[in-house]
Amino acid sequence: MSTRVVDTSKSPYAKLRPVPVEEVELKNGFWAKRLKKLREVTIPSQYELLENTGRIFNFRRAAGREKGGFQGLVFNDSDVYKWVEAVGFLLASGFDEKLHSVVEKVVNDICAAQDDDGYLNTFFTFENRAQRWTNLRAMHELYCAGHLIQAAIALRRATGDEKLFNAAVRFANHILRVFGPDGRPGTPGHPEIEMAMVELYRETGDHRYLNMAKTLIDNRGKGIVGGDVNLIDHKPFRQLDEIVGHAVRSLYLNCGATDLYMETGEREIWNVLEKLWSNMVKCKMYVTGGVGSRYDGEAFGFNYELPNVQAYAETCAAIANFMWNWRMFLASGEARFVDVMELALYNGVLAGISLNGKEYFYVNPLADRGRHRRQEWFECACCPPNVARLIASLPGYFYSLSEDGIWVNMYDENVARLKFRGEEVSIFQKTDYPWGGRVEITLGLEHESAFSMFLRIPGWSKRVEVSLNGSKIDEKAKPGFYFRIDRIWRNGDTIELYFEMEIRKISCNPLVYENLGRIALGRGPLMYCFEEVDNTGFDVWDLLIPEDATLRAEWVPNLLDGVTVIRGEGYVQDSDWKQDSLYTEIEASSRIRKVSFTAIPYYAWANREPGAMCVWARLMPKTV
Amino acid sequence: MSTRVVDTSKSPYAKLRPVPVEEVELKNGFWAKRLKKLREVTIPSQYELLENTGRIFNFRRAAGREKGGFQGLVFNDSDVYKWVEAVGFLLASGFDEKLHSVVEKVVNDICAAQDDDGYLNTFFTFENRAQRWTNLRAMHELYCAGHLIQAAIALRRATGDEKLFNAAVRFANHILRVFGPDGRPGTPGHPEIEMAMVELYRETGDHRYLNMAKTLIDNRGKGIVGGDVNLIDHKPFRQLDEIVGHAVRSLYLNCGATDLYMETGEREIWNVLEKLWSNMVKCKMYVTGGVGSRYDGEAFGFNYELPNVQAYAETCAAIANFMWNWRMFLASGEARFVDVMELALYNGVLAGISLNGKEYFYVNPLADRGRHRRQEWFECACCPPNVARLIASLPGYFYSLSEDGIWVNMYDENVARLKFRGEEVSIFQKTDYPWGGRVEITLGLEHESAFSMFLRIPGWSKRVEVSLNGSKIDEKAKPGFYFRIDRIWRNGDTIELYFEMEIRKISCNPLVYENLGRIALGRGPLMYCFEEVDNTGFDVWDLLIPEDATLRAEWVPNLLDGVTVIRGEGYVQDSDWKQDSLYTEIEASSRIRKVSFTAIPYYAWANREPGAMCVWARLMPKTV
Repeated sequence: MSTRVVDTSKSPYAKLRPVPVEEVELKNGFWAKRLKKLREVTIPSQYELLENTGRIFNFRRAAGREKGGFQGLVFNDSDVYKWVEAVGFLLASGFDEKLHSVVEKVVNDICAAQDDDGYLNTFFTFENRAQRWTNLRAMHELYCAGHLIQAAIALRRATGDEKLFNAAVRFANHILRVFGPDGRPGTPGHPEIEMAMVELYRETGDHRYLNMAKTLIDNRGKGIVGGDVNLIDHKPFRQLDEIVGHAVRSLYLNCGATDLYMETGEREIWNVLEKLWSNMVKCKMYVTGGVGSRYDGEAFGFNYELPNVQAYAETCAAIANFMWNWRMFLASGEARFVDVMELALYNGVLAGISLNGKEYFYVNPLADRGRHRRQEWFECACCPPNVARLIASLPGYFYSLSEDGIWVNMYDENVARLKFRGEEVSIFQKTDYPWGGRVEITLGLEHESAFSMFLRIPGWSKRVEVSLNGSKIDEKAKPGFYFRIDRIWRNGDTIELYFEMEIRKISCNPLVYENLGRIALGRGPLMYCFEEVDNTGFDVWDLLIPEDATLRAEWVPNLLDGVTVIRGEGYVQDSDWKQDSLYTEIEASSRIRKVSFTAIPYYAWANREPGAMCVWARLMPKTV
Repeated sequence: MSTRVVDTSKSPYAKLRPVPVEEVELKNGFWAKRLKKLREVTIPSQYELLENTGRIFNFRRAAGREKGGFQGLVFNDSDVYKWVEAVGFLLASGFDEKLHSVVEKVVNDICAAQDDDGYLNTFFTFENRAQRWTNLRAMHELYCAGHLIQAAIALRRATGDEKLFNAAVRFANHILRVFGPDGRPGTPGHPEIEMAMVELYRETGDHRYLNMAKTLIDNRGKGIVGGDVNLIDHKPFRQLDEIVGHAVRSLYLNCGATDLYMETGEREIWNVLEKLWSNMVKCKMYVTGGVGSRYDGEAFGFNYELPNVQAYAETCAAIANFMWNWRMFLASGEARFVDVMELALYNGVLAGISLNGKEYFYVNPLADRGRHRRQEWFECACCPPNVARLIASLPGYFYSLSEDGIWVNMYDENVARLKFRGEEVSIFQKTDYPWGGRVEITLGLEHESAFSMFLRIPGWSKRVEVSLNGSKIDEKAKPGFYFRIDRIWRNGDTIELYFEMEIRKISCNPLVYENLGRIALGRGPLMYCFEEVDNTGFDVWDLLIPEDATLRAEWVPNLLDGVTVIRGEGYVQDSDWKQDSLYTEIEASSRIRKVSFTAIPYYAWANREPGAMCVWARLMPKTV
């Protein structure tokens, strides 16, 4: 059992290999609470919803076990697969007989729906059977297949399941027959199958799956799915120089291409990925790590097109951003990718699920008037099980390994028992990250051992201190890079990290016209927002923060399951909120008054009574 | 000859009837200069482009007079028609043998391309003949037909032309056969035909055309063209309650519906139009009168979705806005509609054409970094001839008539010789509007006569004075309404109007998050912008204007063909324009410094060297 999210153990062009989910136990900290909620609330409630909305029924129907029509959208199978994948990761973290029996039941339903030839998609049965593979652009068969393969691999790695895995392999082989070397040219309207095929290659060692992934990527830009920009089919992958199109599709494609690169080492692919990544982080990513700013086509906008109220920023796109950066990091070992993962995770992704664990955002605006609320489910319910599988897999990202040593990527209270060079290395992380910037890492070793510890210094940290067994290390730790300590490590060696978590006033590139003259507040990996319920007597959209405002972080245990809020004094220039017309002449003197304000972490917004919210506050300029 | 733009002379539900273009001579003023440029530069250069791009060739080809393939886009015929319509209005204003012979040549080419059955569209000839009327959604046949009819009516009214008019009637009759009472259900993907059919009814008295218009409008929302919101086919017209979809299509449809209302008086239609109008002006119109904020689908966005840099605001949409408001005004006699016409005309429309009369904007951003420049032509060249026909028709909007009297709608130096109650009434307007707010109106009458003069008081005016023969009238003139003077008028009677043209600092409804805390400057009907070339030493995007800033209007005769600029003192908070990353922590203290700034009329931007531009400047709040 070694439930790696992406298993680069044998990938020749990967710098790092992940640590299996089951080797890391998140305990008592920020994410432990979320994982508990996931197990106790989210996963059971999603199971119920998958049943109640006919998503699991569709499999039983396809198997001929139940009567009735296909229910819901054509890609609904994928929601079930993502849920199964989530359960796989959860079972890896902590086996649970009851959960296991539920997932086995679902697996049985899935497998019974498979055709003799390996084909498996509940929409294309009975009356729709003849339509199989006739509309790669819109019908999401390869997308669903990819999710099946990912789920099957996760479940197999977690529990040794062979049943779903065999079904996935049979479907994969069916796909090889249709679109492989002797088949016809194909590529999906919605990427996903690419990374799944590479992972299946990693799981089986069968090169045909790797080649299939390569072919599917190579087939982009040939008009097979219509040649649209939105489907990233307007150009061959290797000619892409701007990140465009449907954000989730674009980023899933990049995941697959990064996976391919880690196996083949093709520089041309890496260069494209680097270009797309730079374009994204420099021109197209929200300060929350959300991406895909445009409603139309759920797409990346133009450079610097980052509206706040009209932000689309689908939860799945933030998840895809996390997934891609994980792969870019495994390929390169560069901390900048983990910075983006962390940013997306704590903000753009986490906002996607309510504190009670059963309501979801699909769209994530950065400013709102109180109308945008999380929903229990969606007709197109891609986001809920996607959040679930990401959170369930979280233990798998905290550490990774190279030949040289152990990499500490993320920080949260945990105990890890890693297999490194054939021995077990225990790591005890004590921290209240993301609320505080102190981390104590103690090693448990059977024998002393020479290796490197690579410690990620978050890009946001200003002052960093690193101590070893109580002595400060003089060498400067550079934010946005890994700090390496080479040493013969002994049992009980303790590294102390201190990342100064001062509140950051963040400005935006002025080319984002909408954010010009505005600031956002951040602290550690968290971005903050101003929500009406915490700020009475004024409208948060009217807030002005002086650039030299003194801001205070305050831990409030009873608020929003415990959060550190930011408090400060600012000004308010009251807008005319009763204004009916679009444009009016301004009053001779508008009222400016002092106010105290409170900001909460962005992920926690819209968990109380509805009201105005914004991330970017106007900067109050100092007069000369 | 009575070249009314919309001839409501006999429309039972119209409050007003327009004055023919030829009765009003714009002299020496703001628009006279533009009309001269239109006649001398724009119209000849567009003719050349229509020839050089194959648009007129397509007609000769269709007639079998020239060989080769169809050139350009499927709706290119409409560009020729709009140009012919523009020439019609110009010939009404001032006959010109040479221009007339050019247009006759074009008319000959057009007419030769007509089929025996009346069908006329150069794309659907030869190999495409079988495709006629098979794709109403996308192929724009009814749209082109509408433009043909409008052009033919304008030319007939201006010159007595019967040739093009007969061709238009024959095509209209063909359409009646296909889509009329005994035909099949039809409605266009791109409205335009509706208003043309109503006008043809007005021109001929043949009710079949009116009924055809009604049928085409009634057929919306039935899925004939696909049921899309973007095509305003998602609902029956009478159920619309929000202005949505492709802006030009939406507004052309509203034009047709308003025309229909003026003939039928159906309240349900008027109520819908009122609702759509309110929604547009309260939630979806730029401060320039531009509309259709969204790139995708060239469409109206959500309420308050009015981005500046990513404004689409197609020139044609501002023109359509003008056209629709003209009809709403004729129907109602309400000044609020003329306010919108004027706003759109002097800003959103006029920005669409360069000062040299031969370069055009298709898209009209309200903030730019200097990359957006007018082009000589476009592959989809709807805007250039649309601007031309609107400007050519301008004399037709300055006055209108009711039973009671004469309505003065717009102000500019002109001499009008109106036919009113069977006599000629001369009106001499002396003014330097839009630069100044004084207007002197002298009446020339053969006999004294009792009637009302209705004088539009622009909605933007603050202090208004009205004098009659040198004596102030005590009664308050209300901005945004017509001021009525009942009197037995004598030859030489003179009305003096004074609209105080103070510079307005305009704020936006705070729900437009992007404009919150910003102001725009306006003076009279003109909106202003800050352009880099006038403002050295700082970036105009960084400008802050104190709410109590003293602003000065200054006439600069040598600048941009003569403009009144706005000058003032503000502050600048320098952004980091070299910033490469999207997000950075702000410096401890950013520099604020005093600067002098200059603003120019928005219509005149991008006529000099490229540089940054914006309409909305940040408001510098006063500290307490």
